[in-house]
Amino acid sequence: MITITLLGGGNLATHLAELFIKTPGIQLLQIYNRNLQAISAFKNSTELTDSLNNLKAADIYIICIADKSIKEIADQLTNKKGLLVHTSGAMDIAILGKREKKGVFYPLQSFSKNKPVDFQHIPICIEASTEKDVLLLKDLAEKISTKVYRIDSSQRKTLHIAAVFVNNFVNHLYKIGEDICTENKIPFEILHPLILETATKLNKLSPTEAQTGPASRNDQETIKIHESKLDLQQKEIYQLLTAAILKT
Amino acid sequence: MITITLLGGGNLATHLAELFIKTPGIQLLQIYNRNLQAISAFKNSTELTDSLNNLKAADIYIICIADKSIKEIADQLTNKKGLLVHTSGAMDIAILGKREKKGVFYPLQSFSKNKPVDFQHIPICIEASTEKDVLLLKDLAEKISTKVYRIDSSQRKTLHIAAVFVNNFVNHLYKIGEDICTENKIPFEILHPLILETATKLNKLSPTEAQTGPASRNDQETIKIHESKLDLQQKEIYQLLTAAILKT
Repeated sequence: MITITLLGGGNLATHLAELFIKTPGIQLLQIYNRNLQAISAFKNSTELTDSLNNLKAADIYIICIADKSIKEIADQLTNKKGLLVHTSGAMDIAILGKREKKGVFYPLQSFSKNKPVDFQHIPICIEASTEKDVLLLKDLAEKISTKVYRIDSSQRKTLHIAAVFVNNFVNHLYKIGEDICTENKIPFEILHPLILETATKLNKLSPTEAQTGPASRNDQETIKIHESKLDLQQKEIYQLLTAAILKT
Repeated sequence: MITITLLGGGNLATHLAELFIKTPGIQLLQIYNRNLQAISAFKNSTELTDSLNNLKAADIYIICIADKSIKEIADQLTNKKGLLVHTSGAMDIAILGKREKKGVFYPLQSFSKNKPVDFQHIPICIEASTEKDVLLLKDLAEKISTKVYRIDSSQRKTLHIAAVFVNNFVNHLYKIGEDICTENKIPFEILHPLILETATKLNKLSPTEAQTGPASRNDQETIKIHESKLDLQQKEIYQLLTAAILKT
């Protein structure tokens, strides 16, 4: 049995709390949050507190709060004997201070509060200062997900940059697609199946193998026609990405 | 019963032939291809020919060949009484010549020869010169797909541009994500669930609503760190897309 004290009341904290409560082999001892109201949904399932002085002793303390507040919380937990981890993609393990038992437990996904999440398929990236604590985090992660990866702080920061490309930037290209459709009275949903196919194709083909379209076959005639129909900013993006594809 | 003669032997022609053969209410009379070998898989299911002079009379002739050859084939079919359609996203309906009975039957998806396709969820964009033929194409399309859209030539060309953004360009961002992972010894598959979530989220949220990340919250500190770790071309794309997100 792994005992957990969870710190935070946001999207990720809520999803983890729900999951820990129902997962065999995990005991959620307590949730801490400055604002008790935000975690009141759990009042019948576990103990709640708004004071760091009341924290119960646990095997693992999981800090699930905004990046900028992690250090402040960690600095107030120097007397805890359990393993202290944060859940941030961008923060170094070192932000948790000089203690020996520290680590990172980073589920790589974008979470929305009211959208249910199937953790079984969410990659959990783990890191810890000692081998023993790596094993403890691995044990915890494997209870909730089939995809557990050992990733150090430097790799995790890089992963965060890659995620910006495949999530935030991709989403912006979806927005341009939607804008083009809207301007021409075409329902954007026509493109949903293509978008989904482009994403799921990665299970079988690398992005390089999967590439098609006017840029990859250097079809300058089509490229010129496309450029002539775009606004200034869309055209800049079209040209830069077309040049990038041509180079590969 | 709608009778069909199919012209072509590529990916789309193969998928359509398989589908037409097994769909009630559709009779595939014949497949034409210059190279009979490419369509030999169908020799027991329908008639095959490599001569345009041998084409059978059908309700609809479907031209499923490369854009640049559509006109050449259409010009040799001026004596046919049935409805002549092409299946191209980029070509105008006018390429089919002066005949009255012409149209477009454009399934919006990227097809690979050996990957099975579920046509039920593939949008079919239809267009025809007369209302009667629009209804005929609608009847055909609804036999194989639940998503049928009436889209004119001008809209279809725009749709093709939007598809370049959400398919080809998105795929290139996947490639950059993969490159960043590979350089840092991170398995790219860690990002697959995030990629899939980003795509499926569109069923519930518009791209504008779904946007997150350093650019959308104008987190200049993180943006600077990210830029410092990218190569020149990645950085150019990072900066342009960050600026575009900041503007929205």
